[in-house]
Amino acid sequence: MIWVNGVFSDTLPITDRGLLYGDGVWETLAILDGRPLRLNWHLERLQQGLQALAIPSPDMTQWLTEILKACRGRDSAVLKLIVTRGQGMRGYNPRDCCNPTRIVQVTPRNTYPASYVQQGIRLALCETRLAQQPRLAGFKHLNRLEQVLARAEFDSDFQEGLVRDTAGNVIEGTMSNVFLIQADSSVVTPALSQCGVAGVMRRVVLQALHEWGIPCRIGSLSLDDMHSSQAIFMTNSLIGIWPVREFMGKTYPVVPLISALHAKVNVNT
Amino acid sequence: MIWVNGVFSDTLPITDRGLLYGDGVWETLAILDGRPLRLNWHLERLQQGLQALAIPSPDMTQWLTEILKACRGRDSAVLKLIVTRGQGMRGYNPRDCCNPTRIVQVTPRNTYPASYVQQGIRLALCETRLAQQPRLAGFKHLNRLEQVLARAEFDSDFQEGLVRDTAGNVIEGTMSNVFLIQADSSVVTPALSQCGVAGVMRRVVLQALHEWGIPCRIGSLSLDDMHSSQAIFMTNSLIGIWPVREFMGKTYPVVPLISALHAKVNVNT
Repeated sequence: MIWVNGVFSDTLPITDRGLLYGDGVWETLAILDGRPLRLNWHLERLQQGLQALAIPSPDMTQWLTEILKACRGRDSAVLKLIVTRGQGMRGYNPRDCCNPTRIVQVTPRNTYPASYVQQGIRLALCETRLAQQPRLAGFKHLNRLEQVLARAEFDSDFQEGLVRDTAGNVIEGTMSNVFLIQADSSVVTPALSQCGVAGVMRRVVLQALHEWGIPCRIGSLSLDDMHSSQAIFMTNSLIGIWPVREFMGKTYPVVPLISALHAKVNVNT
Repeated sequence: MIWVNGVFSDTLPITDRGLLYGDGVWETLAILDGRPLRLNWHLERLQQGLQALAIPSPDMTQWLTEILKACRGRDSAVLKLIVTRGQGMRGYNPRDCCNPTRIVQVTPRNTYPASYVQQGIRLALCETRLAQQPRLAGFKHLNRLEQVLARAEFDSDFQEGLVRDTAGNVIEGTMSNVFLIQADSSVVTPALSQCGVAGVMRRVVLQALHEWGIPCRIGSLSLDDMHSSQAIFMTNSLIGIWPVREFMGKTYPVVPLISALHAKVNVNT
């Protein structure tokens, strides 16, 4: 079910700049028991993206009402939110585009084998690199060709792929963020100032680690850091926490911290 | 007037990956006397883009028929062609998306003051940089947020903006390619291996220079090269050739070579 500007519709005008230029932002999040999980944090990131692109914000009170109505009665589903700059004249110039398009979509949840959480996943290494573009880093815009190219590189033998930037820094998964538990048991996750999406589940994990007093830093990471780490896990608002059991021929354990984080952020109950 | 997969329609399903990820390519070209100008070269670049993204090509015979039909009877108009990967399941994985969406749009031509061609334009310098991403360089895909950000930087005092890459190389205009006529009267235009769109009008100009025996090279260019050049011009399939009369406080002349190129590639008769 899809609503466009509050009205049932499964189509968009072709002149919408969301299609023409990827001129918009989006979020996907879990719906549980009729409620969108961590909606506030998702809307916060969405607003950051709108600000970065200077897209006028939709009327949030009105939109919130529409979002909550769309989620009502859904036990377990996926909520997708898109805001585009709306329709415009021909050309890149975003001026005079004052009516953003807001889209709310509710779809069934994908189910994954329990083993992904319990034993972990196989993580591929993608050859596609993320370009360094600070103006578009951190938020979730509609320009996602790099992710499409990276995702096309691996088949169902792998559940996720690791992507580096053009300078060789480890950045994230194609649809998730990455955390390393280092030999000294401290945790580290890549800085996302040049590229990458700062996931809401990444924020949840960072907060949990902070609450628990576990040393954690955000910094530059290399493949060597991956290899020398004690354990690896991936985060995403829909999957929660996936431990990595294999990466580049090396196996990694599901350490207790990963299980504790999984219990803390559980998105499946 | 818009046709989607050969049928009159001005909307697209929201689940089309063109909207969700900018997963597609496009072209804009001039229609004159019922015929799309340099359609072959535009379709060649479009096909290169489809190949780079591993999007299946639409049936070109069928599509060509649709395109020519859409242009018939149009004295002067703009043709926009879009091919997206079509609809897919949720997620970046492009596999099993075998039905590309083909869009044909015909719109009225923008008219520009004759002075842009005769006296030249004012060229702004954009602060927004293009990220270096060889996988997406040269062709015209739907991920165009960098162009939107760059175009937003200048107002109607300027007719175009010059964009550099993150390493400081001069690359192109927001909607055009750039050529410098150097002090020794040779011509140079930026290499587009890391970013930028290799315009069809750029190709037309390169061919004309070659035919005329005028030395021309494709290479790295800096702002210093701009400043030390004898003359500058911008190229685009719809505008043809625009000389630059002012850039960063310096004025440039409309030299005879620019007028000759304009006469050669004329898109307005």
